Amino acid sequence: MLSISLPRLTSRINGLARFGALAGGGVTRPCWSPPHEEARAWLLGEMRAAGLATWVDTAGNIFGATGIRAFGRDTPVVLTGSHIDTVPEGGILDGALGVLAGLECLQAISEASAPHARPLVVAAWSDEEGRYGSLFGSRAFCGLLDGARIDEMMAVDGVRLVDAMARADFDARRAPEARAPAGTVTAYVELHIEQGARLEEAGVPIGVVETIVGVRRSRVLFVGQADHAGTTPMDRRRDAFLAAADYALRVREHVVTRGSGVSVTNFGVVRVHPGVSNIVPGNAELVHEMRDPDPAVLERLAKECAALAHEVAGVHRVGAEIRLMSATTPAPCSPRVQSAIESVCATLGLPCRRLYSAAGHDAQNLARITDAGMIFIPSQGGRSHRVDEMSDWEAIERGSNALLHTLLALAA
Amino acid sequence: MLSISLPRLTSRINGLARFGALAGGGVTRPCWSPPHEEARAWLLGEMRAAGLATWVDTAGNIFGATGIRAFGRDTPVVLTGSHIDTVPEGGILDGALGVLAGLECLQAISEASAPHARPLVVAAWSDEEGRYGSLFGSRAFCGLLDGARIDEMMAVDGVRLVDAMARADFDARRAPEARAPAGTVTAYVELHIEQGARLEEAGVPIGVVETIVGVRRSRVLFVGQADHAGTTPMDRRRDAFLAAADYALRVREHVVTRGSGVSVTNFGVVRVHPGVSNIVPGNAELVHEMRDPDPAVLERLAKECAALAHEVAGVHRVGAEIRLMSATTPAPCSPRVQSAIESVCATLGLPCRRLYSAAGHDAQNLARITDAGMIFIPSQGGRSHRVDEMSDWEAIERGSNALLHTLLALAA
Repeated sequence: MLSISLPRLTSRINGLARFGALAGGGVTRPCWSPPHEEARAWLLGEMRAAGLATWVDTAGNIFGATGIRAFGRDTPVVLTGSHIDTVPEGGILDGALGVLAGLECLQAISEASAPHARPLVVAAWSDEEGRYGSLFGSRAFCGLLDGARIDEMMAVDGVRLVDAMARADFDARRAPEARAPAGTVTAYVELHIEQGARLEEAGVPIGVVETIVGVRRSRVLFVGQADHAGTTPMDRRRDAFLAAADYALRVREHVVTRGSGVSVTNFGVVRVHPGVSNIVPGNAELVHEMRDPDPAVLERLAKECAALAHEVAGVHRVGAEIRLMSATTPAPCSPRVQSAIESVCATLGLPCRRLYSAAGHDAQNLARITDAGMIFIPSQGGRSHRVDEMSDWEAIERGSNALLHTLLALAA
Repeated sequence: MLSISLPRLTSRINGLARFGALAGGGVTRPCWSPPHEEARAWLLGEMRAAGLATWVDTAGNIFGATGIRAFGRDTPVVLTGSHIDTVPEGGILDGALGVLAGLECLQAISEASAPHARPLVVAAWSDEEGRYGSLFGSRAFCGLLDGARIDEMMAVDGVRLVDAMARADFDARRAPEARAPAGTVTAYVELHIEQGARLEEAGVPIGVVETIVGVRRSRVLFVGQADHAGTTPMDRRRDAFLAAADYALRVREHVVTRGSGVSVTNFGVVRVHPGVSNIVPGNAELVHEMRDPDPAVLERLAKECAALAHEVAGVHRVGAEIRLMSATTPAPCSPRVQSAIESVCATLGLPCRRLYSAAGHDAQNLARITDAGMIFIPSQGGRSHRVDEMSDWEAIERGSNALLHTLLALAA
């Protein structure tokens, strides 16, 4: 039975890991940055060396294909892929695995001349991690990008998307042109590490994703009063940071005790202003993220947290402003793709189980325009978005072979 | 009786306020920055125009004098002054008042040929606000600067003192040479806004400072684990930011309930790492400041807060590291200077009261080498370190006249 070449895939995973590599392991390779653009050139070279036709669209998405040289509504394709950008100090598999395993599958299928009726395409989607906007490339491809908001998109450090893309020789305003014509894609399947510990702890090698969590991201700003940190009596201060601290602790408690049981929340960005030791913080800004597979739970928690923000603000005599930055609704995966993966696992003798994805993925956008699904493999210790993120090479091989045969089944 | 010219002083206060002026009022004029260096040139010009001899020492301290052209142990001087650097988004009086009122006093005394046995000198001390190190210039002048640590001094944003001083044409390594020869100064008196509301609320125009609070500043670092903010279950996270938030709230409560009643604390600098919304913070850093006029209280609170940091770290399953950044001991003012100010107030018909300074001042360093004291005037609403910091012009005139006659008394 046809299978992928693990040595070739291993070599490419380690090859891609050099771009943005950190001294202590792991990578920092944000989209549009110099290491990302070097990785783009390297990936296009690898795709061409593997005999694939390649192209890059106006959103910066990279494609490698067998059987076609561009998308067209007359030849609907079976698509796989993921992304090559990373979070700061991320690991070498998040995103990279799905792109390079997809490339390996197409190369193995090509070299073996394995029969498939549909063209096969592997994609590397731009800015999945959302330095400028989560799932940017797949949003553009799926027609979900709001062109009117491109000019205002910026990273948390204030760098504008238009400038970052310009430095990488892209015109951000043309990104919406990357939208795929209707009927271009007949199915999408993405291989990814689980990024959690459920598969590892259950001893199951393959996860079949049923649904992808929704993620709500809000900017919560507490507005107090900057004052001298020595001469202002404690009872007269309107300290925006203490309000933010109180809010964060209360939200954590609320989400844990009043969420669905799998609800999660995070405050990954914290900024105080003016940010000097001898001034009481006048402003404190949090980026507040919440996730749940159930849209109703997410909606309820968001309302309750907003009420909590105003309650906490009252206690600390500061103001609170909440602005929704982004919200994705939980995305169900296609039953057809889930069945295809399960059939392949049965054939390959790989135990599998259905689970939800606790992270957002490009597949959730593709699910809006085609039958989409995901294959998960275990993450060592459930670790991800950190430099020691890893999976076993045997697990990578098993997952890649499951992807290979799922692609062949969907393209048959 | 001799008095200062309020129109001339007003004009200079407004003149200095142009350097680093903000659109919405107030100023940002950190030491060694271009606006600060422009202000230095302007101040030297004003001093010369007023007939003073001027010089700048190796620590960047600016001097204007009547009767001498440099310090020397044979002619001990009576010194006044303050600073022309500001906090970010600070007001136009903090520091500026003491320098410009001092200049005005010397000009009025000069022009009237008012008799005084001792030479009079006005100083503008470098970096009082401590962008690179609190009270830098007066520390150097008083021989309290540790030359071995100059290379490692840097602002919280990582800018090094040596580079900042080099850009302003100073050699940081030569700053300790600014140390005044023993016996150079016979008395020091500094005029400053109170930066609190005690004088205004008591309806008293002049405060006579008895002691200056001690300030302890520590860097408290919580070390948790960066993890994926979606896939890591809440009960497995080791969130450094939530630990920092918990610590800040508990310290505030502790200092309020277990301090001396006038103890204050602040967390003005807060940083989380890696600082992106979809990663659980692995590190969180606070700059923790505490002040009290009683050294024993300050010492006790520091020990209790350290225990609290480790207790909180245990609850959140993170590590805690505390590093002392700076610590000043409360500085008593000279009884001789306090009496001189009180006698002047009696003569001028100005009610006055003794109080402690809740902020650090250059006078605390001068108190180590000479008889030092401070005159406070009311701050409107007690506001300081913010753009709407102000005092009444009548209050400024009263305080400047009190300074004028205190200088004459001390120099008699």
